[in-house]
Amino acid sequence: MKVAVIGATGFTGEKLVEILFNHPEVEISYLCAVVEKAEKFSDIFPHFKGRLDLVCANPDYEQAQKSAEVIFLALPHKVSSEVAPFFLEKGKTVIDLSADYRFKDQKIYEEFYKIKHKDSRNLKIAVYGLPEFYQAEIKKAKLIANPGCYPTVSILSLAPLLKEGLLKDVIIDAKSGISGAGRKAALEYHYAHLNGNLYSYKPFKHQHLPEIEQILSDISGSKVSLRFTPHVIPAERGILATIYASLTKEVKESAVNQIYAQYYKDAPFVRLFEQKLPQLKDVVGTNFCDIGFQIEDKKIVIVGVIDNLIKGAAGQAVQNMNIILGYPQTAGLL
Amino acid sequence: MKVAVIGATGFTGEKLVEILFNHPEVEISYLCAVVEKAEKFSDIFPHFKGRLDLVCANPDYEQAQKSAEVIFLALPHKVSSEVAPFFLEKGKTVIDLSADYRFKDQKIYEEFYKIKHKDSRNLKIAVYGLPEFYQAEIKKAKLIANPGCYPTVSILSLAPLLKEGLLKDVIIDAKSGISGAGRKAALEYHYAHLNGNLYSYKPFKHQHLPEIEQILSDISGSKVSLRFTPHVIPAERGILATIYASLTKEVKESAVNQIYAQYYKDAPFVRLFEQKLPQLKDVVGTNFCDIGFQIEDKKIVIVGVIDNLIKGAAGQAVQNMNIILGYPQTAGLL
Amino acid sequence: MKVAVIGATGFTGEKLVEILFNHPEVEISYLCAVVEKAEKFSDIFPHFKGRLDLVCANPDYEQAQKSAEVIFLALPHKVSSEVAPFFLEKGKTVIDLSADYRFKDQKIYEEFYKIKHKDSRNLKIAVYGLPEFYQAEIKKAKLIANPGCYPTVSILSLAPLLKEGLLKDVIIDAKSGISGAGRKAALEYHYAHLNGNLYSYKPFKHQHLPEIEQILSDISGSKVSLRFTPHVIPAERGILATIYASLTKEVKESAVNQIYAQYYKDAPFVRLFEQKLPQLKDVVGTNFCDIGFQIEDKKIVIVGVIDNLIKGAAGQAVQNMNIILGYPQTAGLL
Amino acid sequence: MKVAVIGATGFTGEKLVEILFNHPEVEISYLCAVVEKAEKFSDIFPHFKGRLDLVCANPDYEQAQKSAEVIFLALPHKVSSEVAPFFLEKGKTVIDLSADYRFKDQKIYEEFYKIKHKDSRNLKIAVYGLPEFYQAEIKKAKLIANPGCYPTVSILSLAPLLKEGLLKDVIIDAKSGISGAGRKAALEYHYAHLNGNLYSYKPFKHQHLPEIEQILSDISGSKVSLRFTPHVIPAERGILATIYASLTKEVKESAVNQIYAQYYKDAPFVRLFEQKLPQLKDVVGTNFCDIGFQIEDKKIVIVGVIDNLIKGAAGQAVQNMNIILGYPQTAGLL
Repeated sequence: MKVAVIGATGFTGEKLVEILFNHPEVEISYLCAVVEKAEKFSDIFPHFKGRLDLVCANPDYEQAQKSAEVIFLALPHKVSSEVAPFFLEKGKTVIDLSADYRFKDQKIYEEFYKIKHKDSRNLKIAVYGLPEFYQAEIKKAKLIANPGCYPTVSILSLAPLLKEGLLKDVIIDAKSGISGAGRKAALEYHYAHLNGNLYSYKPFKHQHLPEIEQILSDISGSKVSLRFTPHVIPAERGILATIYASLTKEVKESAVNQIYAQYYKDAPFVRLFEQKLPQLKDVVGTNFCDIGFQIEDKKIVIVGVIDNLIKGAAGQAVQNMNIILGYPQTAGLL
Repeated sequence: MKVAVIGATGFTGEKLVEILFNHPEVEISYLCAVVEKAEKFSDIFPHFKGRLDLVCANPDYEQAQKSAEVIFLALPHKVSSEVAPFFLEKGKTVIDLSADYRFKDQKIYEEFYKIKHKDSRNLKIAVYGLPEFYQAEIKKAKLIANPGCYPTVSILSLAPLLKEGLLKDVIIDAKSGISGAGRKAALEYHYAHLNGNLYSYKPFKHQHLPEIEQILSDISGSKVSLRFTPHVIPAERGILATIYASLTKEVKESAVNQIYAQYYKDAPFVRLFEQKLPQLKDVVGTNFCDIGFQIEDKKIVIVGVIDNLIKGAAGQAVQNMNIILGYPQTAGLL
Repeated sequence: MKVAVIGATGFTGEKLVEILFNHPEVEISYLCAVVEKAEKFSDIFPHFKGRLDLVCANPDYEQAQKSAEVIFLALPHKVSSEVAPFFLEKGKTVIDLSADYRFKDQKIYEEFYKIKHKDSRNLKIAVYGLPEFYQAEIKKAKLIANPGCYPTVSILSLAPLLKEGLLKDVIIDAKSGISGAGRKAALEYHYAHLNGNLYSYKPFKHQHLPEIEQILSDISGSKVSLRFTPHVIPAERGILATIYASLTKEVKESAVNQIYAQYYKDAPFVRLFEQKLPQLKDVVGTNFCDIGFQIEDKKIVIVGVIDNLIKGAAGQAVQNMNIILGYPQTAGLL
Repeated sequence: MKVAVIGATGFTGEKLVEILFNHPEVEISYLCAVVEKAEKFSDIFPHFKGRLDLVCANPDYEQAQKSAEVIFLALPHKVSSEVAPFFLEKGKTVIDLSADYRFKDQKIYEEFYKIKHKDSRNLKIAVYGLPEFYQAEIKKAKLIANPGCYPTVSILSLAPLLKEGLLKDVIIDAKSGISGAGRKAALEYHYAHLNGNLYSYKPFKHQHLPEIEQILSDISGSKVSLRFTPHVIPAERGILATIYASLTKEVKESAVNQIYAQYYKDAPFVRLFEQKLPQLKDVVGTNFCDIGFQIEDKKIVIVGVIDNLIKGAAGQAVQNMNIILGYPQTAGLL
């Protein structure tokens, strides 16, 4: 099975290439990115030297569609929806890692991303690629909207308890490594700026908030609104979300454990921690989402962790591909 | 004015020595710590080489009290209350950086620190050394209970709004550099464990929670209870507290700004950020507490930052000393 | 093929378990370490949770030898040579990651490690496990002395040019991440000590110096002596060695390139950088050794990089196992 | 005494402002930088909030010269020599932190910096501002060429022994924090690129090499040539130089100690370590240069450390100002 990666030089694109390259069932037949000059991918990322021999040139979509059946779009928001229609028309399966197809309601997208949507038509066929909750839809999808990093960990941590009607007054305090901001040259990503630093940004207004609310509402069957504040920590990778909520009724830790266990009994990448809270480093480099919690007096604290580039982006995209192509969900991801 | 530092080799003790050494009005006449052998302080901490010539030997309290008028105790919890009575009896001013004298109610101390209190008698005369709220009492104090690091930033961020009756459902999500855990050899403080890591600990149960609640109740005049979860971030120093609350009534950002400004108009170490949130690194190495906030729909997010070793420990101890001795609050601290 | 890991909880042991666990041809049938209580390996290292179900208890060598054909010893120096004879007598293949069997001349070992050797008899049969130069001997070995981390990168960088008689006055300035010091609780490994720090240690006297000299002498066929100074950098993993030498005759960069290429034409884990110098991060997490160099006026600077825990320890051990068992050298390592 | 800082928003300029702001004898009467819009310096660098109220606007040299007697140029190479003549003509004392006036031989400058020199006339009056060796000249200087960071630590470590004719075959392996590269937006300074990384650059060709050679030749009285390779380490600040040399004759460590002690007996910022090697962190945040060494068999290893932004730039600039203005060398620097 041949696959193509469009936008291979961002953090997510690079990670996607790495995972797909090691995948037992697929072959990367094409990759590209906006580059100053065509050069070997392993000259841009020397850790691939001697392993991967592809050349990375500027996009040639015709060549891409000829050479591959599955197209991964690791492009900036807005660009994806300019590119996806072409591949969809050619009958390709498109897995889009941008936000462009994540919102059923295009107005929310336009409000939070501050751009007009370019491809409302295909919005309707897009499937939100969170395998733990939408596996049946993913199986048949032609266009996957791969979830955002914060939404992935937030939704996995919250959905079972919200669906059971156990939570209210939800607050997500999320902490992310800097790779979440993308591979860009900027003073605020300078080592000297981030080292030893920590800051919150966009409280109430981060573009992942409506994504989290939309999907949690869809899963739980009733409108969810919550508070969400992301932070940047002095680390490269990973997100830890500390989630605060009130319980709608007295419930024992064992009962909560059972609920999680029930929801995730067939989810190979969700690991449940009983009696203790997960830490970030145990998921860095993996496609796992680890979840733990503690309860006191009708208050609950839930802690979820993922690698933002893997379960929060490239790994989940491959997990979606596995489902679509009928491979084991874990192929190339353990 | 001569001062002594008992327990000079912890992170806090070392920082205290550094601040006092640079202080224009005082002289360190004695320092000690539990050590394997007496040696020059600058051999233990070579950054003092050529500047500070004191020898650090095992404690000799008789010598300490003879040589100094102000005694700083940078000792572990429980040890302080074994040592303080001796100096108090000799008429010395004691500034204790441990938790031993922070609780009016000894039972809370005993519950959270899991030890019997050693000196309940002096509990009564202890003054909680948060200058922004207890300056009058500090001026006359013989025994200062220097606040904990998390309580300092939490109380400064919350007290004005709580006293004005504006907040309910308060949650503190605090993130601290590893120096808060003390200078100890342990696998969990190993560079390889912490680098790239992040974890929460003791939700609902951290010993600083009752300290925060006690002081906020005292300042606001009504019983405060809240939720508090600390985290360790991969950094050496500093605490950032992200605080979530509901507002008890509609209030504009400008009104909240005014409240803070009013409460802290004479506080040289509280800096208020309007329209933006402070970041950790701007206070590291300083005695400042920076505070910012944002409001939406009767919800508020407050962000406070301090250097845990300075405003959260050694700097605040010196600020307390300055007040007691009649120096400007900022002496040696700017 | 069943394998056992003795000493599974050090940094090297943990990494060995990880590599062997993912290896397509072998199964870890036994692992152990000196522990306070037997517990699941995934409780000690939660990143294995849901993947690896072995229990880690205190060593039971009888059980180990019954359950496995290849025994990896990831033990401290001196301990290995107390344990290896037992397994050798049972006919097992032993791959020892300590220094105990690396020295042909036991006196050098005893001088640099400051202990009496425990098993001089088996010293004679031990094969130095550097596949790029001793593959034929490794194939037939019953006891592998797996090379040290600094020696691996130093020898691979130097051996071809030394054997060709091109170098004199060799100086190795090596920089290593802290994991090289082992998983131990100590103040000098404290995050707050290492973060932002850098220091050299043991110039002229590091125990890897005689190992480097012995093997380079053996490979080049004439006695090599050189200078070697290691440093600790504020990073978790990897070694970068900057090597200075004088050239014994005028030689072009292209000629040097050819020499390296010739020596390493069958070495899947040595990557040669022409016209540029390798950087550390490109080998972290891999079994590669990247080598580059520059020449000016009969002076050469060579830069070699490895991951100290992989090519410098666990990965190379598995590479040796692959050779012994007739698997592709790269099995489980790409 | 009023001083001006031209180019206040680079790492060096910011540090200069901080040191001068805390200096007991001077006042910053003017600062500027190329900025998008004029704003408070404390809005650009919030750690100055509440302490420093100056506005940073685009350069107005007329205003600068009117308001200050001493002009610090913290400008990029080439720009300084376009600006300095104006201030010199007005009779101001200029302390230039760029490389523009460091070379007596303009051709070397032009070769290594790859630009034509703009102000050869003032080259002649420029004094190399290394106080430990040029104090008499500095006292009378109108134009100071403040030394580079690598040259400062290299020259201080080497000059005494070179002048005594003790060294040959000198190699400097230097390791620097990333702030040495300047406050610029670039992918190679991205946190995710540098974290856990390490690399060497420009062996044989770094522009600080001819500066080191020129000054060491001048001090020692005979032509010095050596090898110099800088590295970037994953840290923000500081340089550690590991220096290798052969001794021209047998000499005891005690004799070498005496030589250093003799040369630096009046140097308040050079600290000599006997029997041990200095580590980087002990000088970070200070104007000290710490030096240690070890000898074996007519080979010596010298280790020198400085904070590149302080003794390697801003601190040394202020030390030069102190000398010129007749203040104690240490004013504002301890």
